[in-house]
Amino acid sequence: MDKPYPPLYYSEYLELDRLLDSQHRKSEEYGDPAHDEMLFIIVHQAYELWFKQVLFEIDSVIALLSEDPVQERHIGVCVSRLQRVIEIQKILIDQLRVLETMTPLDFLDFRDYLFPASGFQSIQFRMVEIRLGLQSDTRLRYNHAAYHSRVSVEHRDALIAAEQETSLFAALEHWLERTPFLESDSFRFWERYRAAVHDMLEHDRSVIEGNPTLSDEEKVQQIHEHARTAEHFDAMFDPAKHAALQQEGQRRLSHRATLAALFISLYRDQPILTMPHRLLASLVDIDELFTTWRYRHALMVHRMIGTKIGTGGSSGYQYLKSTAESHRIFRDLTNLSTFLIPRRVLPTLPEDVRRRLGFVHTTDAP
Amino acid sequence: MDKPYPPLYYSEYLELDRLLDSQHRKSEEYGDPAHDEMLFIIVHQAYELWFKQVLFEIDSVIALLSEDPVQERHIGVCVSRLQRVIEIQKILIDQLRVLETMTPLDFLDFRDYLFPASGFQSIQFRMVEIRLGLQSDTRLRYNHAAYHSRVSVEHRDALIAAEQETSLFAALEHWLERTPFLESDSFRFWERYRAAVHDMLEHDRSVIEGNPTLSDEEKVQQIHEHARTAEHFDAMFDPAKHAALQQEGQRRLSHRATLAALFISLYRDQPILTMPHRLLASLVDIDELFTTWRYRHALMVHRMIGTKIGTGGSSGYQYLKSTAESHRIFRDLTNLSTFLIPRRVLPTLPEDVRRRLGFVHTTDAP
Amino acid sequence: MDKPYPPLYYSEYLELDRLLDSQHRKSEEYGDPAHDEMLFIIVHQAYELWFKQVLFEIDSVIALLSEDPVQERHIGVCVSRLQRVIEIQKILIDQLRVLETMTPLDFLDFRDYLFPASGFQSIQFRMVEIRLGLQSDTRLRYNHAAYHSRVSVEHRDALIAAEQETSLFAALEHWLERTPFLESDSFRFWERYRAAVHDMLEHDRSVIEGNPTLSDEEKVQQIHEHARTAEHFDAMFDPAKHAALQQEGQRRLSHRATLAALFISLYRDQPILTMPHRLLASLVDIDELFTTWRYRHALMVHRMIGTKIGTGGSSGYQYLKSTAESHRIFRDLTNLSTFLIPRRVLPTLPEDVRRRLGFVHTTDAP
Amino acid sequence: MDKPYPPLYYSEYLELDRLLDSQHRKSEEYGDPAHDEMLFIIVHQAYELWFKQVLFEIDSVIALLSEDPVQERHIGVCVSRLQRVIEIQKILIDQLRVLETMTPLDFLDFRDYLFPASGFQSIQFRMVEIRLGLQSDTRLRYNHAAYHSRVSVEHRDALIAAEQETSLFAALEHWLERTPFLESDSFRFWERYRAAVHDMLEHDRSVIEGNPTLSDEEKVQQIHEHARTAEHFDAMFDPAKHAALQQEGQRRLSHRATLAALFISLYRDQPILTMPHRLLASLVDIDELFTTWRYRHALMVHRMIGTKIGTGGSSGYQYLKSTAESHRIFRDLTNLSTFLIPRRVLPTLPEDVRRRLGFVHTTDAP
Repeated sequence: MDKPYPPLYYSEYLELDRLLDSQHRKSEEYGDPAHDEMLFIIVHQAYELWFKQVLFEIDSVIALLSEDPVQERHIGVCVSRLQRVIEIQKILIDQLRVLETMTPLDFLDFRDYLFPASGFQSIQFRMVEIRLGLQSDTRLRYNHAAYHSRVSVEHRDALIAAEQETSLFAALEHWLERTPFLESDSFRFWERYRAAVHDMLEHDRSVIEGNPTLSDEEKVQQIHEHARTAEHFDAMFDPAKHAALQQEGQRRLSHRATLAALFISLYRDQPILTMPHRLLASLVDIDELFTTWRYRHALMVHRMIGTKIGTGGSSGYQYLKSTAESHRIFRDLTNLSTFLIPRRVLPTLPEDVRRRLGFVHTTDAP
Repeated sequence: MDKPYPPLYYSEYLELDRLLDSQHRKSEEYGDPAHDEMLFIIVHQAYELWFKQVLFEIDSVIALLSEDPVQERHIGVCVSRLQRVIEIQKILIDQLRVLETMTPLDFLDFRDYLFPASGFQSIQFRMVEIRLGLQSDTRLRYNHAAYHSRVSVEHRDALIAAEQETSLFAALEHWLERTPFLESDSFRFWERYRAAVHDMLEHDRSVIEGNPTLSDEEKVQQIHEHARTAEHFDAMFDPAKHAALQQEGQRRLSHRATLAALFISLYRDQPILTMPHRLLASLVDIDELFTTWRYRHALMVHRMIGTKIGTGGSSGYQYLKSTAESHRIFRDLTNLSTFLIPRRVLPTLPEDVRRRLGFVHTTDAP
Repeated sequence: MDKPYPPLYYSEYLELDRLLDSQHRKSEEYGDPAHDEMLFIIVHQAYELWFKQVLFEIDSVIALLSEDPVQERHIGVCVSRLQRVIEIQKILIDQLRVLETMTPLDFLDFRDYLFPASGFQSIQFRMVEIRLGLQSDTRLRYNHAAYHSRVSVEHRDALIAAEQETSLFAALEHWLERTPFLESDSFRFWERYRAAVHDMLEHDRSVIEGNPTLSDEEKVQQIHEHARTAEHFDAMFDPAKHAALQQEGQRRLSHRATLAALFISLYRDQPILTMPHRLLASLVDIDELFTTWRYRHALMVHRMIGTKIGTGGSSGYQYLKSTAESHRIFRDLTNLSTFLIPRRVLPTLPEDVRRRLGFVHTTDAP
Repeated sequence: MDKPYPPLYYSEYLELDRLLDSQHRKSEEYGDPAHDEMLFIIVHQAYELWFKQVLFEIDSVIALLSEDPVQERHIGVCVSRLQRVIEIQKILIDQLRVLETMTPLDFLDFRDYLFPASGFQSIQFRMVEIRLGLQSDTRLRYNHAAYHSRVSVEHRDALIAAEQETSLFAALEHWLERTPFLESDSFRFWERYRAAVHDMLEHDRSVIEGNPTLSDEEKVQQIHEHARTAEHFDAMFDPAKHAALQQEGQRRLSHRATLAALFISLYRDQPILTMPHRLLASLVDIDELFTTWRYRHALMVHRMIGTKIGTGGSSGYQYLKSTAESHRIFRDLTNLSTFLIPRRVLPTLPEDVRRRLGFVHTTDAP
């Protein structure tokens, strides 16, 4: 600390000479300067800066979760970094309002010059999806073409290479599978949980049957849905059924990891599960915010080009709207809500289990 | 102004005695107080307060637009009030984040007590949709039941009555149809516009055909889409074709009103069209924000109850997600972007027309 | 769970008959209906609804922190509830933009009718300040009058009574003072910390002296400030000096509680300190957001009435602006940043201390 | 349009190779990589990108308002561009929440490496202030040093040169001074306005005197303030008094421009004044948002470094907080609210004046 560091100058540290000299309007190059093209460039550059930061955070979280064993204090670090991603995502969504200050007619002033460049070609956004865990074969195809058919060879290779690495989804699944409290329990947790679920489902069914505001037809349908819920619960307790749902694409997370996530969600008030629960909740947030971003982006494209083909030849908004939901990564975590039961019917943890989930130093009454 | 008004006290003015004594938790009534039920009540009450304000603004805009003739200065008033609706909608969306501080497990603490109450029963939100112009027969049916099958007789009657009144869509259409500049033009505007469109479409087609990044298959598909765009343009110039699209449900706005809206969008830089253009843009904003709100609401419901049936028996989020897009009212205005052409190929207005679109007092060069 | 609860209807549950019939414009009563008065009423009612929710959350946090001992799992509950307050505060700030859609001229249409009602009379907001810990004698006086001089006798009594109860500040201080890790440490923590601080301050001074961009005059001033910082550090280690600063109003939190908060901030990566650290950070957030809200509110008042006296006779914005900062409650927590030292010079905790700060079940390497 | 433009690739268009290779952590360079330094760099780069866009918009608005005469349709263009600045400012403010995901302790991991770089050295932000109209001699001095004492010679020269050019404030003032409707009016507008003001002030005084909630002492003070308001009104009608207030630094806008701005604010419902009014309101928004941004920035600095000196040796938050208000540019426009009078006492414009403020083509009743 004694050695003085050379003095630093703000604009050199931030490399502003380069950064602020990287906006060149095509419309100007072609002798027809369009005022709003500057906004178009800068908004997209701001997106790319944020994508770099999001990738930086996600990569670090994958690294921390891939340690074996994961250090407890690192769970808190992961949560903080994911919450940072969440704050960035809110900016990503809000930035659309800035772009929407450009009207469709203003966009036409320079749209032709950009052909066939397109946001489809944002390598970093593809990387974000891949690093989170989007699998190539679950991507919606656009006009039957692979998602990387529009990008340079170099970029395509980078994307394919990234798909081979551990994603956040995979790291999470592996970490969940190692959760220790599930099988060593002296008491038969899942047995008691199953009994509680059984009672609850019975109750739910009687609620539907006794609902005076439902027509007979509606009752039939809801009983049908209720039966499906019961089936889903069965799959929660039966690895074979879970495997079948995975086969159909209705589940992705392994059976063991799913049970661990459910346990964490149910007993997140126990000290050792508090941060793991926040980790899961943060991932649901991130999933929801990217879904929202994709949807809002689709609406913006609709507004900007109507039903025309996009720059780069994408027919645009219908495709984008479809990806909003289908490109979700952590749907299994969101769906966990289906399997929660009210605290008042939740099996009480025996004292010895409860103590094992606490701190060394405790002031809690026994 | 001399007569003094009786002094007013803040809490009496705002009727806080009633307002702040209108939160009674069912869970408390049933002897099992759930902390988070208070939030649940207050968030929904805040929504209802805002809905009341939104209805108040929309009703006033309908009234102003229904005058014959509409006073010019009232267009500015309408725009201001619609922009207020927009600011409120942003709050509606942001409030979802407050509600999401309640976790799914917390919700289960009191969910059973609320049955079968449901947001489906918000009369004011239905009224907002109706006053904007949502038609009963274009509403997505939920389990084949009419949207008002779950509400009280009194409320249902109020909804049906509201459907008979002039909606904002209808008032707007009628106002647009009276736009005077379209037919009295000495020069043949639409003829020249059509020629410009023809040139542009030819250019677009050559762009697709010459796009090196497209496969043959993609080209075929995009040429197909391009042909559809050309057809849509034909419908813009041909009342019979427009009528056919209306028949299919692809258009709702009358042919005459559509042409007026397009003219306003193209020449909104002319002083007399500036505020009308902002009026149209505000309606697209409002449509987009309600679409976003419905979508975000659906995601929240998904997160809260998973794939279970909702309170009130709604299976919830899939239905809600579908309404996000299908309940749009001003889709015709958003779709106008399809028919815009770049300013550089836009027919120049003759001087006499241009003058008629200006102010009495002008400093503009001839 | 077998006993069916009576069916619930949405509008009855939310008591909408009352809630939506509590908006009566004075301007209408006086035969001169002003459109924008409706917005004015509803925005203020929405504020009051949120204030009720904020009070509900703060009261519950005070109760949990006042238990002796505080249960560990309750710290997480407190953090969640404070984060809910934070999300509500963001809405409070954003709602100002809705109110600002009313222009100053529109406000004049009904302003005279409201006299002398004023936001100064919001009992709930005063309660929020009191429950957080604002002390009567640190409130900025407005025109030398007690803050409750404008409210009804009944309300004034309620405010005075509330001041006698345990505030969040007091509950927090008491909880911090009970933090067990400070004195039982085998190793002399504060001695080692003091040594590390000494080294850091030496370094900081040499940095100032060697700063080539500072003039001599600037150096003198910064060295002066640096000396003040050193003094502040001295006060951190010397209860008598801390007491002196308390006397001057520069500190409020007790010496013991301040040390505990600093320890938590420095070692928040240790599992047992993770949630306590988030608790402290949430309080800094809440403080910052109310400060921001007061400031934004002052700007809005400035915009609305200029330099005139407010409704209720408040000269308004200058006073409001001053309270933004002076009514902060948890300034001591924000100021803790002054006393942090870089992790790289932070004393390492001995293994036995570190283990006492961990979980019973641990996978961490020794 | 026939000549095909060379195909464009997304990452080349946005110059991403440079943009995404401009983040180099000092902490990494010095062998002690601090995770959060990446966020620190990217947030600041995002700010600089947005500053570039803000400058681009402001420069274009200055250019349009500097034309003589200003074309009417350009007022609408100016409003749109200023509203874009407003949307960007909201992002600037929200981005602070992203930066605040970095805790003070995390900042210390790399803070020493950055010395003496500081946000004070952001040339673009200084340019924004200068282009808006901040005058060098009204800047708060920081430690008696000129605001450009910390920047490179090249940058200082650029700042000094920028101060010589027409600012937005100057262009606005000049445009307002040319508003034609003020003196050519057949009817004596200002005479009648003055009479209306006189009545209103009499009323206000009686309201204070009759306010039962005020103590005698408060009444004395408010009557004093009321007298000051009356004086301000006098200055509005008396160029000499206005000049005296300018001398004292209480006014900056010329008398003639102030009258024009007041006229626009009062009669903004007249078609030709609608967009000018929105222009003025947008400038008040921009002023308010930069004030908010400075204030929030000051709070963030306080939180991050406490009462220590900042990187670059700035003692930081107290200075920043002071600039929030003192660096406002368009305070005269905000203060106009002081001089508004209710519509019900506003002099009615004679028919011939009203017609001159309307459109050529009108459907308004006479």
